[in-house]
Amino acid sequence: MTESIGFIGLGNMGHPMAINVLKAGYNMKVYNRDLSKTEKIVEAGAKRGIRPDDVVERGGIAVSMLANDEALEAVTLGHDGLLSRLGPGGVHVSMSTVSPALAHKMHELHEKEGCSYVAAPVFGRPEAAAAQQLWIVEAGNAAAKERVRPVLEAMGQGIFDFGEDPSHANIVKISGNFLIASAMESMGEIFTLAEKNGIDRTQVFNMLTQTIFGSPIYKNYGQKIAEKNFQPVGFPIQLALKDINLVLDAAEQARMPMPFASQLHDRLLSGIAKGRGENDWAELTRGIEDEAGIE
Amino acid sequence: MTESIGFIGLGNMGHPMAINVLKAGYNMKVYNRDLSKTEKIVEAGAKRGIRPDDVVERGGIAVSMLANDEALEAVTLGHDGLLSRLGPGGVHVSMSTVSPALAHKMHELHEKEGCSYVAAPVFGRPEAAAAQQLWIVEAGNAAAKERVRPVLEAMGQGIFDFGEDPSHANIVKISGNFLIASAMESMGEIFTLAEKNGIDRTQVFNMLTQTIFGSPIYKNYGQKIAEKNFQPVGFPIQLALKDINLVLDAAEQARMPMPFASQLHDRLLSGIAKGRGENDWAELTRGIEDEAGIE
Repeated sequence: MTESIGFIGLGNMGHPMAINVLKAGYNMKVYNRDLSKTEKIVEAGAKRGIRPDDVVERGGIAVSMLANDEALEAVTLGHDGLLSRLGPGGVHVSMSTVSPALAHKMHELHEKEGCSYVAAPVFGRPEAAAAQQLWIVEAGNAAAKERVRPVLEAMGQGIFDFGEDPSHANIVKISGNFLIASAMESMGEIFTLAEKNGIDRTQVFNMLTQTIFGSPIYKNYGQKIAEKNFQPVGFPIQLALKDINLVLDAAEQARMPMPFASQLHDRLLSGIAKGRGENDWAELTRGIEDEAGIE
Repeated sequence: MTESIGFIGLGNMGHPMAINVLKAGYNMKVYNRDLSKTEKIVEAGAKRGIRPDDVVERGGIAVSMLANDEALEAVTLGHDGLLSRLGPGGVHVSMSTVSPALAHKMHELHEKEGCSYVAAPVFGRPEAAAAQQLWIVEAGNAAAKERVRPVLEAMGQGIFDFGEDPSHANIVKISGNFLIASAMESMGEIFTLAEKNGIDRTQVFNMLTQTIFGSPIYKNYGQKIAEKNFQPVGFPIQLALKDINLVLDAAEQARMPMPFASQLHDRLLSGIAKGRGENDWAELTRGIEDEAGIE
């Protein structure tokens, strides 16, 4: 494992992911806009760059994990962007949850420079990232995917391939986040109906997750929602709204109504209006209680 | 096992359930409005009654499995209803998916006659009923529940107790059906988004159910929806609309909006308008494709 990795974006998700790549034995140079967030990983053996293009080697591998489209564009494009350095043969593994439209644009810009853009967004909260338990959805050039596979394996428990068009991985990723938010809204509605009828929320949660809804999403988020215990914050409502907006944009592009997504948009937006934007997205369900007159 | 059971309602669900009780060694008398549906179980050893009160013994156990509130009222109340015969010490195990309000009314009427009304609605399709794999949600008088427990065990793989108020079991049951319909709608929306973007529906289904959504509901219904294969009909859209109406009625009573339930109401109603009322409820997702302009 002599490949050197340029890792860009060391937030709640990026930091534990980068740590796992470092542990797998790669040489690593890191960049984060807020330099203070690089201290821990530099102690662990990574080198620090002060600009995105600092950390990338010509023809090498860059990995980015950022909050949104704007951040990905900022570190990739422009005179000190990673794309200015990556060059022929290089691979940019873009793990952020960004719009399918941006993935498409990035794919074309990278091709023009002779390098590859592999979209590889992930499912999992920061704890899962730390435990190397992410699920990774990838799409992009076949040879590039093969080259970066060991890097992805260092971060996740499984990789699902969706072909050559990077935007497809992003559609699947935002679809998954929509599916999680839908599950949370629907659980919130029935737990509140139970509560209003004098039935224990947790008992309903237990029955459903011990029988026909026994998947990680229903178990993990369902417990938070049943118990109204939303700590710690794994993924804030602000970012969840961003993702539902990406879903609605993709649906608009594809010419299809998504009524649940529209409903979730308003639910999340209202959560932000009520000052819950930095709270965990499971707290979207508090809006249901608000509307039911529960204090 | 010398208890004699009066079993009322031998439809798609009631028939396999009654067969399992019979196999467990109980004496059984059966009633069904359409007498022809009793032929098979009479061959298997049950006796046939021609009126609901025919099949019930004074102080005995009656089990009913019917399509809706009206059918349950018809076989229970009135001069030839089972309640006219059941009398002191008797137990009526009501396994139909009916309104919490009717459960409450039935509870009071049974108490007045000195007998008990145990609500025990079930989760599972006809195949699950045949395989003794139903999940049963029960609520009612404690002594009555204890007496009928072996009868329920003959029909299901697990029993969840929700206390003394029978209506609570019905709230949990209709909540579960709502949760299933919500899961189907949300899967339908993303599989259609995938399709409109040239991504294989089944590949998205596989990824999600092999990772964070690996529960029976997502696997079983998700496969039908991904493949657009809605045979055989386990539970028709007509009955699903009935259940969502029960949810909305309960929500109205409890004074709480349930926006996903409202959305599902319109989706199911539109399915009926398009002539799909007798089709499986997973086909509610065809409405999403209709709206997306998919032929």
